[in-house]
Amino acid sequence: LRDPLGTPGAGEATAGWQGGAVLLRLVIGNCLRRARHDQGRTLQDVAEAAGVSIGHLSEVERGRKEPSSEVLAAICRALGLQLSDLLRDVQRELEAAPAPGRLLLWSGFDLAA
Amino acid sequence: LRDPLGTPGAGEATAGWQGGAVLLRLVIGNCLRRARHDQGRTLQDVAEAAGVSIGHLSEVERGRKEPSSEVLAAICRALGLQLSDLLRDVQRELEAAPAPGRLLLWSGFDLAA
Repeated sequence: LRDPLGTPGAGEATAGWQGGAVLLRLVIGNCLRRARHDQGRTLQDVAEAAGVSIGHLSEVERGRKEPSSEVLAAICRALGLQLSDLLRDVQRELEAAPAPGRLLLWSGFDLAA
Repeated sequence: LRDPLGTPGAGEATAGWQGGAVLLRLVIGNCLRRARHDQGRTLQDVAEAAGVSIGHLSEVERGRKEPSSEVLAAICRALGLQLSDLLRDVQRELEAAPAPGRLLLWSGFDLAA
């Protein structure tokens, strides 16, 4: 398998855009982190409930690692979210952040949180 | 990293459900395949346009492989879809297939197509 878009650089990963395309793992990560923050829960709490390591959950939230569908289901369950709820948030984020500059600001805000 | 839900068996992967959770890669794969069929395009055509192998695209469509966010972006581009369009389809599928039995039928139909 060739990677048609190359390996993301740190800057591109932070901005969420690569070759004009937003990367799904970054939007999913942001939505997961926001859901956790909205519930006032720690990484440790949610990671334990999902049965994943704190480090892995943190990397997923920051869009550094692609979560498998199984891990994503476990994180959703730990957060009390249906996958369809998460995907609705993700889809709204994608529609709300059509321009790279806007997503950059949004990611910057989230990374600082 | 522990895999909290275990490795999917073939039957569970076909049904799209595991431990009561639908697996995102199966829904994404179905939506990608349907978009390709709607355009009357072959695996070879879309795989070449996306810069991935035919085998990999086929596995992604069948939910056998997790596509990276980069590969997913390339396949969307090859299909002329925005990621937000794909996610809207995915979210609708998730809402339309709330019960394992229904998703089983739906996956069975798609696998036969």
